[in-house]
Amino acid sequence: MPSLRAHVYRVPADGPDDVSGVEALFAAGLKPQHVVAVLGKTEGNGCVNDFTRGYATRSFENLFARYGVEGVSLVMSGGTEGALSPHWTVFAREASDAPAERALAIGTARTPPLPARHLGRREQVLLVAEGVRAAMRDAGIDNPSDVHFVQIKCPLLTLSRIAAAEAACETVATRDTLKSMGLSRGASALGVAVALGEADPETMADEDICTRYDLFSRCASTSAGVELTDHEIVVLGMGAGWSGPLSIDHAVMQNAVDSASVRQARDRLPERARLMAVLAKAEPDPSGKIAGRRHTMLDDSDISGTRHARAFVGGVLAGLFGMTDLYVSGGAEHQGPSGGGPVAIIVEKES
Amino acid sequence: MPSLRAHVYRVPADGPDDVSGVEALFAAGLKPQHVVAVLGKTEGNGCVNDFTRGYATRSFENLFARYGVEGVSLVMSGGTEGALSPHWTVFAREASDAPAERALAIGTARTPPLPARHLGRREQVLLVAEGVRAAMRDAGIDNPSDVHFVQIKCPLLTLSRIAAAEAACETVATRDTLKSMGLSRGASALGVAVALGEADPETMADEDICTRYDLFSRCASTSAGVELTDHEIVVLGMGAGWSGPLSIDHAVMQNAVDSASVRQARDRLPERARLMAVLAKAEPDPSGKIAGRRHTMLDDSDISGTRHARAFVGGVLAGLFGMTDLYVSGGAEHQGPSGGGPVAIIVEKES
Amino acid sequence: MPSLRAHVYRVPADGPDDVSGVEALFAAGLKPQHVVAVLGKTEGNGCVNDFTRGYATRSFENLFARYGVEGVSLVMSGGTEGALSPHWTVFAREASDAPAERALAIGTARTPPLPARHLGRREQVLLVAEGVRAAMRDAGIDNPSDVHFVQIKCPLLTLSRIAAAEAACETVATRDTLKSMGLSRGASALGVAVALGEADPETMADEDICTRYDLFSRCASTSAGVELTDHEIVVLGMGAGWSGPLSIDHAVMQNAVDSASVRQARDRLPERARLMAVLAKAEPDPSGKIAGRRHTMLDDSDISGTRHARAFVGGVLAGLFGMTDLYVSGGAEHQGPSGGGPVAIIVEKES
Amino acid sequence: MPSLRAHVYRVPADGPDDVSGVEALFAAGLKPQHVVAVLGKTEGNGCVNDFTRGYATRSFENLFARYGVEGVSLVMSGGTEGALSPHWTVFAREASDAPAERALAIGTARTPPLPARHLGRREQVLLVAEGVRAAMRDAGIDNPSDVHFVQIKCPLLTLSRIAAAEAACETVATRDTLKSMGLSRGASALGVAVALGEADPETMADEDICTRYDLFSRCASTSAGVELTDHEIVVLGMGAGWSGPLSIDHAVMQNAVDSASVRQARDRLPERARLMAVLAKAEPDPSGKIAGRRHTMLDDSDISGTRHARAFVGGVLAGLFGMTDLYVSGGAEHQGPSGGGPVAIIVEKES
Repeated sequence: MPSLRAHVYRVPADGPDDVSGVEALFAAGLKPQHVVAVLGKTEGNGCVNDFTRGYATRSFENLFARYGVEGVSLVMSGGTEGALSPHWTVFAREASDAPAERALAIGTARTPPLPARHLGRREQVLLVAEGVRAAMRDAGIDNPSDVHFVQIKCPLLTLSRIAAAEAACETVATRDTLKSMGLSRGASALGVAVALGEADPETMADEDICTRYDLFSRCASTSAGVELTDHEIVVLGMGAGWSGPLSIDHAVMQNAVDSASVRQARDRLPERARLMAVLAKAEPDPSGKIAGRRHTMLDDSDISGTRHARAFVGGVLAGLFGMTDLYVSGGAEHQGPSGGGPVAIIVEKES
Repeated sequence: MPSLRAHVYRVPADGPDDVSGVEALFAAGLKPQHVVAVLGKTEGNGCVNDFTRGYATRSFENLFARYGVEGVSLVMSGGTEGALSPHWTVFAREASDAPAERALAIGTARTPPLPARHLGRREQVLLVAEGVRAAMRDAGIDNPSDVHFVQIKCPLLTLSRIAAAEAACETVATRDTLKSMGLSRGASALGVAVALGEADPETMADEDICTRYDLFSRCASTSAGVELTDHEIVVLGMGAGWSGPLSIDHAVMQNAVDSASVRQARDRLPERARLMAVLAKAEPDPSGKIAGRRHTMLDDSDISGTRHARAFVGGVLAGLFGMTDLYVSGGAEHQGPSGGGPVAIIVEKES
Repeated sequence: MPSLRAHVYRVPADGPDDVSGVEALFAAGLKPQHVVAVLGKTEGNGCVNDFTRGYATRSFENLFARYGVEGVSLVMSGGTEGALSPHWTVFAREASDAPAERALAIGTARTPPLPARHLGRREQVLLVAEGVRAAMRDAGIDNPSDVHFVQIKCPLLTLSRIAAAEAACETVATRDTLKSMGLSRGASALGVAVALGEADPETMADEDICTRYDLFSRCASTSAGVELTDHEIVVLGMGAGWSGPLSIDHAVMQNAVDSASVRQARDRLPERARLMAVLAKAEPDPSGKIAGRRHTMLDDSDISGTRHARAFVGGVLAGLFGMTDLYVSGGAEHQGPSGGGPVAIIVEKES
Repeated sequence: MPSLRAHVYRVPADGPDDVSGVEALFAAGLKPQHVVAVLGKTEGNGCVNDFTRGYATRSFENLFARYGVEGVSLVMSGGTEGALSPHWTVFAREASDAPAERALAIGTARTPPLPARHLGRREQVLLVAEGVRAAMRDAGIDNPSDVHFVQIKCPLLTLSRIAAAEAACETVATRDTLKSMGLSRGASALGVAVALGEADPETMADEDICTRYDLFSRCASTSAGVELTDHEIVVLGMGAGWSGPLSIDHAVMQNAVDSASVRQARDRLPERARLMAVLAKAEPDPSGKIAGRRHTMLDDSDISGTRHARAFVGGVLAGLFGMTDLYVSGGAEHQGPSGGGPVAIIVEKES
């Protein structure tokens, strides 16, 4: 029985518009139409006025347009604080004649458009849960425990979307567009939790979103983008119908210094294997303390707390893995426990 | 034969003026006159306009003045980026009736005042080397390999010192007061290197200071202060005439992700021992790369590279040690190899 | 009939702890016990982690303690963005044999302690209004239109004050200590508005505080400090029982580029007079626009909007007055119209 | 005799990639091929890692490419600190049947490519001077006193250009690429000074560039870009062969609070005229003082001094002109006196 095979490439970027490394992959044989997603770390501040994300997205849109390819999920996370290195992680998949075995599986899905009145509410949670299930099917993954990372790009409220909703006599969860980003990220993460059986949709209320942080998914990573009204979902896990040398596992850091959980996840993967990608979420512990000691990330009016968190957790992970081109992203509502976050690890077995 | 005994206390600080934790130590029995040095991490930016250092120094001066104690070396390092936690590390020593064994030794010395014309030049290197030797004698350490950390507070050039030197027809190494801080830190670190036999004073020229970074000390940590014209030197090492449960060792990180060297140093210390203090220096790799990958610390016009470096190396070390009240200081001229830095570890054996 | 006479001194500061210029005033004859208030501009970020304010306050406390003087109102505003120059403005008053005429009048008052449950609520507004009336009486000013600047230092909620209130079965306006600062500033400004007849206490509700920005005082300037539980109030105006060459007037800038209002206020003062002090409040226009054009102050995740506002309004005023040691302070809830702010001008007639 | 006619448009920008306002001008009749230059203020930090400039440049390149237009000078200046508003200023010119009179004249020129070994040296000064003369001829301006603003985009040294030069046994002025930007800006400004008779090329030496700041041009505005190896020069002045309602004049601010010079320049222009554009350069006074008072711009390790300077001088100019979409650019080597800078004003007479 033939199989599907996943590919993962980590490509250095000299700037937000430097897609030359991905062009080189195409020149070396990677088929652009096999590319499913690009996760980028760009060197902006990762906050409101970070234009490196849009600049990178535009650059990749232009690149793929030249090859006539559409629909690649482009997820740009700003902020390479500390020694984190700007880079792109390219995910591709293709049919293979090799026999199916258990290997890294990639599945994707898009949800129907989300009405503005549903954003940040229970309806978004349910819509995303349905989308995650579809992406799992696309990946051929039945068992939620085989899912190790779910990347979601979700919509946000703009002034015009709010106006249109209100003109139709509907209400929105918030009229603050910035706040809508957090709500959408949080609801999307809870959608992952529902799909993976980590949270019960029956008992979940609108008010729980971005307040009840004891509810979370162990492997959701979500980011909001102004350019879409639906959700782009990429599921990474271990699938039976796949082949090739790639494997994935994940850890849930309980706090910013919890390297032990990450080390254990690495140890569950094949020992003699090359590290292909590390994907993590980080946030300043909202309690103001880590392991009983005060941190100053949330009191710093010069540097955003998310920048502190990426730099620090980037150091924790780089110290473990000995490399700096790690995908460490901020804004972790319902993505791992409060002050902690999920860390996915992809390795390639030595051949 | 009686002995000397060293004490090390790590005390949380709620702000640059919060010395209440040290007062509590006094109330609990620590004699203020036994205190040799206080190394502080304060929550400023660690750069030019960081007033938390002066505020903390003033607060400790007032505290010790109330107890009639003078001459304590107060070394304040600004910058608790990432999850680093503001705290004081208090070093004390006292005579003990316990028999001498091999244990943590603390020695101090002050050099004669440094003429402004010598700052940042070979003469400063030699003066500091002499001072380090004196501090080693004070600690009862003969063998340079028993020295694991040398903290030096050194002078800088001010406009008035430059003017006085020039009025006396002398020249100074630089007329840029900020640059004089780097030169003084670098010359002091090279003084440590000379005292410990890591560099040859005969072949060292004025021009090598802050240019030939292949010359460095494996365990120097230096900082410049406007309030002194001499050098305050604190040597930490293992001494034969000491007693008590404390031990020290050190690593030299080769770059910002070199956790292996630190782990090895930890492993050389007693296994079942409580971590008392970690003292480290960090800097953005001047090559612009770490382990072959670009970093953006030196191109960031919003956040100083030293802040990035402290946050990131703080993460590397916190991930290893599981605690965040680490002394991670920036500005590492000739202190460890370029892009790397020394890390001292102090532990207390379980009793 | 003898009179009171006000003095105003503008003193450069070389740092947050540089009180030497004020000491020089004492040496030159100013009696420390005549000093009523010191308004300082210190060179921190003016936001949460600005320790230059506490450092300066401590330095002045020590200075006045040496002269046995207590009760001077010390108001430190952080942030000398742009070309604003760190400085102290010293306000003093003394009895004079000169006949009373119309001149700058300074009055002070302290309110009773504010119960935590009243902070940020209507009760605080009324308490402050009573205090402002007392300070007006102290200044001998009957007519509200003779008041041109009211500086208030108000309390904030700390975790322990909140806990104490809740232990007594009381509620507080907010459990967010940072938010309590804004509420206290806003309620204090509305207290000024009530005392000066600018707002009707009968129709004012708790909910109006920090929401109904159409309610404001034309000449309130308030700041919250952790060190007090009552209010320190300084009223500046024109009083009939005063003598000396000083006069005051004020403008209300309608937005950040409204130099015309300031020029008109200056023109109402004696033409041949020396500028003694300019005291202003500034804030980023919450509408996101000024004079129809977008500004980026509120979208900037690298620099706080209050820092942008001080730099810019500092430029507007410095361009008008040709000097940079201006008191421009941020955080202007209910202090002038939304996006604008009060500007007081003090001049000394040529003799 | 027919004439040339200049057009100036000030267009708001919603982001670095928002060229919709310029597209609207094209839709309303402006011919894309008549556009000579676009000067943009984008909302980045204006320093090393400001990608909003490249993003905006790319967006305009794409726009003009769609219309088949090449060679438009695109000058992007990052930094809209304070209330400065992101916008584009579009300069166009066309033939007109109207009789020639004295009006705003626009001339352009490009120099031959600058060899890397000449950058930041006397040869660059002379090459630029020749180019400015060519642009003056293109504008039909004979008299240097009719020139009021010269915008130059100049090259910089990259690692590969340096390597190529050194491979050819040539030397470069600096091996520091960032420093090469300042040298290129400075040499270009001195080229303007030579062309306008403000500086004597005979007595100018390589060493004077970026050191002898008493040499400067009253109306140069230069910026370095990585994308060119020659110089793009735009001269704005008053020309006899031009028609239309536009006029230009300029001031030289002596320091950051020198609003008087700007007011005088405005007063030399027609009284009843609409303000079309203000183009200015600003920098932190390198003396550390303005009008005798200390500023903190150069000591601030959180915010770059150029950002402070733009915010503050933006305020000075906005207070004068009552508008915030001003072109205020930093980095003013040899562009106006030390700590000051040129300010060009373009107005349109009422018809």
